[in-house]
Amino acid sequence: MTSTIEMKKLSSKNIVSPKGFTAAGVHCGLKHKKKDLAILVSEVPASVAGVFTTNAVQAAPLKVTKEVVYETKKMQAVIVNSGNANACTGKQGLLDAYEMQLLAAQKLGIASSLVGVASTGVIGEIMKMEPVKKGVELLNPDSKLESGIDFSQAILTTDTVMKNTTYATIIDGKEVIVSGTAKGSGMIEPNMATMLGFITTDANIESEELQKALSSVTDCTFNSITVDGDTSTNDTVIVMANGLAGNDPLSPAHPDWENFYTALRLVSEDLAKSIARDGEGATKLIEVEVDGAVSDEEARKIAKTVVGSPLVKTAVFGCDANWGRIIAAVGYSGAVIDPDKITIKIGGATMVENGEPIQFSEEALIEILKQHEVKIFVSLEVGKGHGFAWGCDLTYDYVQINASYRS
Amino acid sequence: MTSTIEMKKLSSKNIVSPKGFTAAGVHCGLKHKKKDLAILVSEVPASVAGVFTTNAVQAAPLKVTKEVVYETKKMQAVIVNSGNANACTGKQGLLDAYEMQLLAAQKLGIASSLVGVASTGVIGEIMKMEPVKKGVELLNPDSKLESGIDFSQAILTTDTVMKNTTYATIIDGKEVIVSGTAKGSGMIEPNMATMLGFITTDANIESEELQKALSSVTDCTFNSITVDGDTSTNDTVIVMANGLAGNDPLSPAHPDWENFYTALRLVSEDLAKSIARDGEGATKLIEVEVDGAVSDEEARKIAKTVVGSPLVKTAVFGCDANWGRIIAAVGYSGAVIDPDKITIKIGGATMVENGEPIQFSEEALIEILKQHEVKIFVSLEVGKGHGFAWGCDLTYDYVQINASYRS
Repeated sequence: MTSTIEMKKLSSKNIVSPKGFTAAGVHCGLKHKKKDLAILVSEVPASVAGVFTTNAVQAAPLKVTKEVVYETKKMQAVIVNSGNANACTGKQGLLDAYEMQLLAAQKLGIASSLVGVASTGVIGEIMKMEPVKKGVELLNPDSKLESGIDFSQAILTTDTVMKNTTYATIIDGKEVIVSGTAKGSGMIEPNMATMLGFITTDANIESEELQKALSSVTDCTFNSITVDGDTSTNDTVIVMANGLAGNDPLSPAHPDWENFYTALRLVSEDLAKSIARDGEGATKLIEVEVDGAVSDEEARKIAKTVVGSPLVKTAVFGCDANWGRIIAAVGYSGAVIDPDKITIKIGGATMVENGEPIQFSEEALIEILKQHEVKIFVSLEVGKGHGFAWGCDLTYDYVQINASYRS
Repeated sequence: MTSTIEMKKLSSKNIVSPKGFTAAGVHCGLKHKKKDLAILVSEVPASVAGVFTTNAVQAAPLKVTKEVVYETKKMQAVIVNSGNANACTGKQGLLDAYEMQLLAAQKLGIASSLVGVASTGVIGEIMKMEPVKKGVELLNPDSKLESGIDFSQAILTTDTVMKNTTYATIIDGKEVIVSGTAKGSGMIEPNMATMLGFITTDANIESEELQKALSSVTDCTFNSITVDGDTSTNDTVIVMANGLAGNDPLSPAHPDWENFYTALRLVSEDLAKSIARDGEGATKLIEVEVDGAVSDEEARKIAKTVVGSPLVKTAVFGCDANWGRIIAAVGYSGAVIDPDKITIKIGGATMVENGEPIQFSEEALIEILKQHEVKIFVSLEVGKGHGFAWGCDLTYDYVQINASYRS
């Protein structure tokens, strides 16, 4: 067993940095000017894992991609468009998703059963397939860093920044890279799929183990963020692991498992926090940490309830140390609590201790709340559960972005 | 059995209109200028029923009032203040709530075990008891309509309008009146208890039957509204039934039961809708009706999920016929649905039929969405469940009210 975690953050790398990955992103015409079609490719069929929206209404591309993840169990490429979610588009939507899969497979000369499809954009509008067809011809993936950036840009909707993160770790003495990119922001213009995430790694790991790792990591990363509580019809996170790093197959029994798992968790956590920070109209990242819940699940549930409360979100926007709203959200989270044991801190300053209000300096708190990251800590003392959630403040701009897209 | 429901809405009456009820409301100094202390009294001890917040953090007055409802099982008066919620105030808060109960009982010359207490306002600040003591001396309840209005005004926080409704029905050939008043609006300055409701009736009914009726009615009225999804620490609805109408004791076996039940339901529904319509910053009442769910409970759950979606709320504010957000909310409600059977209408215009988008006139829809009441209808065709929920749009003013109270 390694006693320490080997981990290096590589700030200038991206999804094409793990061995054997290439990418491309172009403008095809689904959006007015910006890039809107992208492809991510592995040199060889890669082990694959995916997590998908829990919404009972699911967009057509999810059906196609789930077949690749659950039936083929290998993925070699994923084609992604922004500008149209291909959701609630009936039978034609499904035909279009399969056609996108086929177009990408033909372009790359691989089996279509190895190609995933993801879409984000307007709900309820039929895909314009002519631009997509022309766009696929323009997609010439390579391993240049710029091509990775093109991919990351082409999947954005109203995101204000690209979301990329890359870590290197050591497995069997070999460097293994895990890199990810995502889009988030919210659902707008009129309905953007909330979240797409793509993670590449050259680690050698079977799909089954990869899926377990991704599912576990997702609970405390992608599933622990909220922008507005609206679960989209298109949420998708895909990991492709092509094995080109040459390590022995990974599983929890492998002595360097923690290195790989931590890299996957850090990539996911970075992307999740980037999405929360870049929520529609957001000016601040809010991190809520809960300690002493009856379980880790309950800790995360409470943290997510607090960070999702519109009243907490507006209070943070207004630099108001409004702990009453925090304790009220803890109370209605549905988790086991004892009101007389709750302690609440904002940015390290204690607001409530064992359920009783503590005098605090309003001025000092306003300074804390003016920062771009606001940390809320809740201690419950009813168990050993611990967890985090991340979100953003609720601002005039959120209302503006979501109320006025057609006016 | 009566084959038709006997019901008359009495627009100029209020909570003192049922026989034997008196009220008063004064300014005592918990708020700057407005009335902030009120009392509602029955000539004789009344049967009582109550529903209370499900928040695990509950304000001190709820403990006192629950003892009256669940142990005394009769109530003769309730004292209410606005400006301070007496929540998260520890042992002192509980002592203060009991002192309010005692002060009211002494003033009226009745047992304190017959007096309920309700508070709404700031969370986490100790009650100023001096103003309350002086205020109680000023409370001289009588049966004038103006005194009922004084009560309704004194319980308000950031509500922009009073909320009153009164119905008369016939039971055993005698007129029975059911009247209610409420406060709602949201949680502000910094934390206002979301909802207080007080219903008076001269009907003769035991507390046990009254509680069953109130609990049943609450599910499809007070529990079917949402302003911001934040469940307060102080929510309370109380019904007092003093029996002075002289009818035979009511129960579901009574031939006129439906008359009474309907009056109670209509009073509750009117108050609930008034609260939703007057939500913080709201410009519109949104009504969501769901038909064809697997049960009435699921229908209400879906309706409440749709009406609570920030994206649906901002779309209605922006007059945007954004049915994609509605179907997405239906999908993540957690209810059983079949995406291919969903039909969605806005103000009677069909947006989606059996899961497929329908062409509609944007202009006509903008006109529909400009109204002060917007009706959304969702048909699921997976069962016979039916239900409603009410809410309001999400506006700049909501953010302004909740972000800037201290600045």
